[in-house]
Amino acid sequence: MSASADLPLLITTGEPAGIGPELTLMLAAQGRLPEQTVAIGDIGMLRKRAATLGLDVALVESSPGQSVRATAGTLPVWPVALRTPAEPGVLDPANAGYVLATLALAVNACQAGQAAAMVTAPLHKGVIIEGGYPGFTGHTEWLRDACGVDDVVMMLATDAALHARAPGWQGSADLRVALVTTHLPLREVADAITFERVTHISRLLAADLTRQFGIAAPRIAVCGLNPHAGENGHLGREEREIITPALDALRAEGMDIQGPLPADTLFTPRHLAGVDAVLAMYHDQGLAVLKYAGFGQAANITLGLPLVRTSVDHGTALDLAGKGVADPGSLGVALALARRLATQRAGAAC
Amino acid sequence: MSASADLPLLITTGEPAGIGPELTLMLAAQGRLPEQTVAIGDIGMLRKRAATLGLDVALVESSPGQSVRATAGTLPVWPVALRTPAEPGVLDPANAGYVLATLALAVNACQAGQAAAMVTAPLHKGVIIEGGYPGFTGHTEWLRDACGVDDVVMMLATDAALHARAPGWQGSADLRVALVTTHLPLREVADAITFERVTHISRLLAADLTRQFGIAAPRIAVCGLNPHAGENGHLGREEREIITPALDALRAEGMDIQGPLPADTLFTPRHLAGVDAVLAMYHDQGLAVLKYAGFGQAANITLGLPLVRTSVDHGTALDLAGKGVADPGSLGVALALARRLATQRAGAAC
Repeated sequence: MSASADLPLLITTGEPAGIGPELTLMLAAQGRLPEQTVAIGDIGMLRKRAATLGLDVALVESSPGQSVRATAGTLPVWPVALRTPAEPGVLDPANAGYVLATLALAVNACQAGQAAAMVTAPLHKGVIIEGGYPGFTGHTEWLRDACGVDDVVMMLATDAALHARAPGWQGSADLRVALVTTHLPLREVADAITFERVTHISRLLAADLTRQFGIAAPRIAVCGLNPHAGENGHLGREEREIITPALDALRAEGMDIQGPLPADTLFTPRHLAGVDAVLAMYHDQGLAVLKYAGFGQAANITLGLPLVRTSVDHGTALDLAGKGVADPGSLGVALALARRLATQRAGAAC
Repeated sequence: MSASADLPLLITTGEPAGIGPELTLMLAAQGRLPEQTVAIGDIGMLRKRAATLGLDVALVESSPGQSVRATAGTLPVWPVALRTPAEPGVLDPANAGYVLATLALAVNACQAGQAAAMVTAPLHKGVIIEGGYPGFTGHTEWLRDACGVDDVVMMLATDAALHARAPGWQGSADLRVALVTTHLPLREVADAITFERVTHISRLLAADLTRQFGIAAPRIAVCGLNPHAGENGHLGREEREIITPALDALRAEGMDIQGPLPADTLFTPRHLAGVDAVLAMYHDQGLAVLKYAGFGQAANITLGLPLVRTSVDHGTALDLAGKGVADPGSLGVALALARRLATQRAGAAC
């Protein structure tokens, strides 16, 4: 396999009415894109957005297989045509197919060995559904289906450089939090925690911590579902009946996995110090602290795919679009992380 | 009213088999107790624990109304007799009544104007229940009933000194998180979120931010219940049907309250900067990030009581008891905070 460092990182610029296009252009204008980055989107829309914001970026049309070099002020683009013109802040369901086409191009290129990884700028779920894709539930599930895998794991990670800690911090440089359940109403969470799901997600997590992060024997700490991890059954029985048996089974397989631990104990320096990733039972249990730790600039990684995919950790921010005031920090973290993961994964595959 | 600075801070030393007694003794030996601190507990047990740990602390028997001075190496004690000798790490239900008697003494002294505030070391809920108090559900509820109030609010706060942030941090020095629901199994949380509860807890929180923290017009930010605060009803309906109407009603009363906001958006520097307290819907949504921010050394405050009560944010740690290795940091934070709150509250009452 050729060195993945020669292959481009793809940015799908996402919802054209959102901030994805301008975040990409801002990083390009500032010379903050990794060298071999390619944007996927409508080249006319990107040109117009750059002009609106006074960003001095030369957009260079390119295509899969061509050698590219994103230098300060230059951004290679693999073009996908808008279905209808896009105005910042104004959603149009007619462009739903356009957004999905940018994703399809990225997946195909990654699968064909023409790209190192894909990094997704935000899309707007509602307008995709409205645009004729009623079953659409988000990037992560779309990628799962496009790649033909049964299940994936949502993980967020802070960036080591951002995660500089106050004096006394002893944790690892990065904080990584994966989720057993993701976008479920809170009242449905408890029933979604099953022996099968906890063991399956834990195995996917451990496998990709090795494959993508190069951690030979990953150490995972698992949150309980209930406050105080159920306090010996006084505050809920899922720990005793489901989570502990699941973790016992995983330990019997040789996995280095501890828990279930109270979430408000686990996320302290003493407990995080020896841990490569935390597995939280549900969205807000894990992501509130992760976003706090990452100063709102974390990256989202989909584990379990046959390709490397990272993402920003925020939405389309329609109210900010076209103003040049959105913060490209998370996109920068997602790009840096994608490059690291792709390099690790290529090395592991040799 | 006489200056509260003349009145003692009371530490109820809690479960005698746990770490409460030694945390108190460690701070005393290190000269880290505020000047007018009094410990409540069995004086023989405290002497023996100090001897076991080689802590050079002179225990001075005192009583309510007596003037006291805790200097480095000296600790005034209001004695309450153990029912049966206590060994570190070994729970004995026979001492349940002893633990509750230390609390009753503290409450009475605070109510009688003989103490500025009470600071509680951890007790063990299970052994109190086993010892003949089947309805016991914890310090907070016991204090609510002992003080004859209908409802209280559990809030945790980090200490400003501990909360020194990495470069770029723009939030307030202290992070304060109050909870709408506390110790409920996760599957019961959604049904416990009612219009009445959200408005009632918000009002108690705002009132005590003024009375105890001296914040004239408190700014409160409220988390949604569901991921992404329900994402316009796609991920749960409680925000639309309950929380938003409740917050609208509070705003109509003049309260400065924003939300419901996604928990993983709210706990970022940009959103926390203009906020005096965060109101989370449930335990792990708010406390995982609070404990992370406080490096595991936050303090618990009960709002809505006719007295000032703070507490450590940890349990009895039976496995550490008698070894002198437990960290008295949270007790130190709870004491410092209790003094600040008592001074503020006394000033406000003048």
